Amino acid sequence: MATIDRTFHVDPATMHLYIESLGKIGWQDECGAVRLAYTPAWMEARKQLSAFMQAAGLEVREDAVGNLFGRLRGEDDSRTILSGSHIDTAPCGGKYDGILGILAGLGALKTLREQAGQPRRSLEVVALCEEEGSRYHATYWGNRAMWGMIRAEELDALRDADDISIGEAMRAAGFPPERYHEAARSDIAMFLEMHIEQGRILYDEHVELGIVEAIQGILKFQVTVHGRAEHAGATPMDIRRDAFQGAAQMALDITRQVEERGRPAVVTMGRWDVRPGGVNVIPSEVRFSIDLRHPDEATLRQLARVCSETCESVARRRGLEVTVEQIENYLPAGMDTALQQTLIASAKTYGASWKYMVSGAGHDSEQMSRHVPAAMLFVPSVDGLSHNPAEYTPIEDVVRGVNVLTATLYQLAY
Amino acid sequence: MATIDRTFHVDPATMHLYIESLGKIGWQDECGAVRLAYTPAWMEARKQLSAFMQAAGLEVREDAVGNLFGRLRGEDDSRTILSGSHIDTAPCGGKYDGILGILAGLGALKTLREQAGQPRRSLEVVALCEEEGSRYHATYWGNRAMWGMIRAEELDALRDADDISIGEAMRAAGFPPERYHEAARSDIAMFLEMHIEQGRILYDEHVELGIVEAIQGILKFQVTVHGRAEHAGATPMDIRRDAFQGAAQMALDITRQVEERGRPAVVTMGRWDVRPGGVNVIPSEVRFSIDLRHPDEATLRQLARVCSETCESVARRRGLEVTVEQIENYLPAGMDTALQQTLIASAKTYGASWKYMVSGAGHDSEQMSRHVPAAMLFVPSVDGLSHNPAEYTPIEDVVRGVNVLTATLYQLAY
Repeated sequence: MATIDRTFHVDPATMHLYIESLGKIGWQDECGAVRLAYTPAWMEARKQLSAFMQAAGLEVREDAVGNLFGRLRGEDDSRTILSGSHIDTAPCGGKYDGILGILAGLGALKTLREQAGQPRRSLEVVALCEEEGSRYHATYWGNRAMWGMIRAEELDALRDADDISIGEAMRAAGFPPERYHEAARSDIAMFLEMHIEQGRILYDEHVELGIVEAIQGILKFQVTVHGRAEHAGATPMDIRRDAFQGAAQMALDITRQVEERGRPAVVTMGRWDVRPGGVNVIPSEVRFSIDLRHPDEATLRQLARVCSETCESVARRRGLEVTVEQIENYLPAGMDTALQQTLIASAKTYGASWKYMVSGAGHDSEQMSRHVPAAMLFVPSVDGLSHNPAEYTPIEDVVRGVNVLTATLYQLAY
Repeated sequence: MATIDRTFHVDPATMHLYIESLGKIGWQDECGAVRLAYTPAWMEARKQLSAFMQAAGLEVREDAVGNLFGRLRGEDDSRTILSGSHIDTAPCGGKYDGILGILAGLGALKTLREQAGQPRRSLEVVALCEEEGSRYHATYWGNRAMWGMIRAEELDALRDADDISIGEAMRAAGFPPERYHEAARSDIAMFLEMHIEQGRILYDEHVELGIVEAIQGILKFQVTVHGRAEHAGATPMDIRRDAFQGAAQMALDITRQVEERGRPAVVTMGRWDVRPGGVNVIPSEVRFSIDLRHPDEATLRQLARVCSETCESVARRRGLEVTVEQIENYLPAGMDTALQQTLIASAKTYGASWKYMVSGAGHDSEQMSRHVPAAMLFVPSVDGLSHNPAEYTPIEDVVRGVNVLTATLYQLAY
């Protein structure tokens, strides 16, 4: 078990200023925070962040795709310990998702510089330019650029709702897209990310911090069920082939089996299209989505088989046709156990309650963990809200998280 | 049990000519038959029908709203035995729904006049002007006019998709709307209607004729289920309040209980709206329709209670909120038993197979039966199709039905 040598106390007023200053940028009434990649609001937020980084005494630098870094240079500058998150938002987001992880890293580095001086190893805070995929289907764009994973053809192929390519958007924002490969780095030693939980477990259970053991793998499917459209009055129940009744049975049977696995397995059927959709016509075609998540790859694949076998067996019994098509696939990502232990030791030093958690949502740490040791620290979201303008984490919960992050970074870098 | 004194054989070529001549009028490629009330296609069809009626030696008359009658005057002309159906179609209909009942009455009266001469009691065939409610929400308009049930304010209040009132449409078609009340009649003795089944029972079971005992009552409900929208990844199964899972359970539980009642009880949940509808968001609000039908009013009301109690009990168990709102209400209509017996005796005389049926769809006979004895004879629809351009009933099935109708009318009027 790691031990913690020294604690720090970040200034709550500074954290509050950071959150409120950034939260105002791109705020739209009746929607919330809108900072989509390469838009004016996104650029304004980066400018404000850059000013805060400079004021905190960090060396500010941006890369070729628009990731923004603030560095506290160490005695040994060959590799860097990175902390941060993404600056873009969901289409109508709040003041916490993503941005709080950047501000936590900034608050930590500011505090360390002021109270502990130059570190042994370099520390950086990063505002990753794109994670949500809100404007472009380019989830983890900033992250992928750092690992040299962007393909040249994506610059033109990725288009927003106005048919503007991501390359054009980059150029308009001052980032010549042909230089995208210059964003690649090989000097990252590890990554730490603080984030709101985006669920209600910490909030409901009154636990102060979540130590993420793994980010769940996600498999998404589209299920299409075909039956027979017939007159609601003239067709006896016993000769119907009602696509909806079959689909409802599939949905309940799948849910029951996933529930039987217990936490953290989750499955959601959120999108439904029932046709022809007339009150007096028996449904002949139903499409629905399955979103299945589990942190263990073998279990995830086994549950995926449960989903497709359940659909097929219900369809067979009811004389329906069914197809189950996989539409997305993210493998589970384990967080680094040594980093988890350091975070836990830090939490204990502050007397903070904590629990191990599995992240149900995807995060930059998922991509980072494929390349370097990565770890995540969750703070509570009131009512479990996220991707919602009402997202809220009380300042004492924010400060507790940043303190734990600060002490952890001290432990790693000094 | 009634007995039949004499059989008749209508000319298949004449019936074929009738069906094909009328079927061409208002036919639109990629849609089907479109004869909406008071449109040019509707007027052209009435003109063609009028010519066929005259050629058959009937006295042709139209009433103030556009119902068209062909009379074979009897020795006693004080009351009339009416047969027919509606001339308007569903938005993209076929060549049989409605119009076949008019052509059957016409074929029967033509045959009786030619082969049996003047009847003792007057016989009439009617082309009712509107039954489907396709252009106006004016279901049974022609029928209601005959029974003095139209209210003056409807002439302006009923509007089509182009905001043309039904009064304006009537005037444009040559029917001054202020005269609507002149359509009322008090000399109808009884009503007989031949119709395609609109379901697949006769077709699947190879039964030639259906004797309708009752037209089902219909209750329609809108159910709204409220749960909690949360992140599909970050919310464990055991703390979810998934509105869709609850609604699916309601749908399956209701269906099972209605199935347990056996034929002819039917229930259909055909229209579904699941919100917010994101793949990775737990559904928070579901609206769905319930269409419940049974020929016995007490049973219908009891099944309605089953529906609402099931919704409430599932909602309670799952921590959801639910409202069940009745949106339509048609009471069951019993067909006249003496007329049923005459139809059955006629079917037997022709050696036709038959079965008692309940009509799941509404028909003009439902309205007629509130005022005079009414009866319905079903002929098979291939594959159970209706409200569909592919509607088809083979000519031998048509002729068998018209023969049975003709012998029945002979029995009643001669």
